[in-house]
Amino acid sequence: MKIAIQGERGSFSHEAALRMLPGCSVVPCGRSAEVFDRLAKNTAQAAVIPIENSLAGPVSEHFDLLLAQDVFVQREFRLRINHNLIAAPGVQLKHIRRVLSHPVALDQCRDFFRRHKNIHPEPFYDTAGSVKHVIENDLHDAAAIAPRQAAAEYGGRIIQRSLEDDPRNFTRFFLVSRKRQINKRANKTSIAFSLKNVPGALFKSLSVFALRDISLSKIESRPVRGRPWEYVFYVDFLRGNDLAAKNALRHLGEIAEWVKVLGIYSAG
Amino acid sequence: MKIAIQGERGSFSHEAALRMLPGCSVVPCGRSAEVFDRLAKNTAQAAVIPIENSLAGPVSEHFDLLLAQDVFVQREFRLRINHNLIAAPGVQLKHIRRVLSHPVALDQCRDFFRRHKNIHPEPFYDTAGSVKHVIENDLHDAAAIAPRQAAAEYGGRIIQRSLEDDPRNFTRFFLVSRKRQINKRANKTSIAFSLKNVPGALFKSLSVFALRDISLSKIESRPVRGRPWEYVFYVDFLRGNDLAAKNALRHLGEIAEWVKVLGIYSAG
Repeated sequence: MKIAIQGERGSFSHEAALRMLPGCSVVPCGRSAEVFDRLAKNTAQAAVIPIENSLAGPVSEHFDLLLAQDVFVQREFRLRINHNLIAAPGVQLKHIRRVLSHPVALDQCRDFFRRHKNIHPEPFYDTAGSVKHVIENDLHDAAAIAPRQAAAEYGGRIIQRSLEDDPRNFTRFFLVSRKRQINKRANKTSIAFSLKNVPGALFKSLSVFALRDISLSKIESRPVRGRPWEYVFYVDFLRGNDLAAKNALRHLGEIAEWVKVLGIYSAG
Repeated sequence: MKIAIQGERGSFSHEAALRMLPGCSVVPCGRSAEVFDRLAKNTAQAAVIPIENSLAGPVSEHFDLLLAQDVFVQREFRLRINHNLIAAPGVQLKHIRRVLSHPVALDQCRDFFRRHKNIHPEPFYDTAGSVKHVIENDLHDAAAIAPRQAAAEYGGRIIQRSLEDDPRNFTRFFLVSRKRQINKRANKTSIAFSLKNVPGALFKSLSVFALRDISLSKIESRPVRGRPWEYVFYVDFLRGNDLAAKNALRHLGEIAEWVKVLGIYSAG
């Protein structure tokens, strides 16, 4: 099964894809839009995309693409984010003077740099890409911070594990495909809807859940492109494809300008 | 007046700081936490930080820092994001084979790369930093995509303006300082509050605004670090320091675990 991901082989998306679908083959894409293009053209059967990190927040671009494209969320998966120090074989910690990685990863490993004052962080465009760079150029004074998977992918050696300051570092991934398929054990729903910006509109729209004792686990407002004063809301609620959820969505349809169900799936 | 920014001189934050406070002197910081450290230590009088881009979404790290630190939002400002093609003096479009910039900026200029198939995008850690790199290394086959300010800063020449695909590209900035100061014409309030994850909790908390006809312009939920099932909500509402707003906040205090007013300011 071909799974499109954004980023290089060995990235966290690659790791998440292998955890969700062991043995799958990933198709690395330079940009997120390309991931969705591949689904549309059927050159990948599904995609695995990060949608939220517990420290860095939502990946808004992916929510916008989920809304714009004819796709459906099949599953969610929470990946513990482990940052590893990876270098070329033979390189030891005492040789290292600089560490390359994506700025977000460097920032999540501040304690490491505080403990090693002679090692300098060097921002790079991608975590897995920084391992690729260090290995391909056979650098001996440098290492990279990246997921474990990147060491396996590029023949790097893990010098130190779990460099991240905060262990409560998770990224939530969606498995997305063009099939509108709902698992029988589905207990979570992701929707998007739009409201006119009039006082109380959001309050009314949330009443459809509150009146049926349905819990929300996420809400986010985003301005609609090119339509000032109109907002799209992304909401997750903790119900599958049952009667209460169907009634709530029908009720929401009376209040919102439009409603799109992004997926009905098992909570990860 | 010394204004701390995250990123290099010539960045969009630098541009926003100069537009908000003409003639101010910026203090570039490598990391966002350093920006807030400088406020705490009084080595900068204020900070200018991006908090939301109309295409890329919220900068969650900055919301978390606003919540954790003893600071207050003084003003907001919306900066139109213009991407410019910048190269070393004498370099012409026909010489350029690669263009460096932050991945988000490259992705917002896809039409340019579609029109120039022989020019390759090359991800770099920072927009302004890519101009610095191109000029300092006197590259003649390369250019950078960055704000206008970066050309002035590093002696680059703007070869082409407005490379961005979507002109509805704005970033919202906050001017932040340690002073709890409220402008008389303030008409917007940013707050954070926390709720237990029980059905209807959010609905109840939004009633305090709906019952007083107060419009919300933003809402975002974020899981509280280390406290599963507890959420912090970031809400903006369109009222200043008036009686209705004070009543709504007092009422919200009865429902929420805690409420923090991040700032009361004039809408930008």
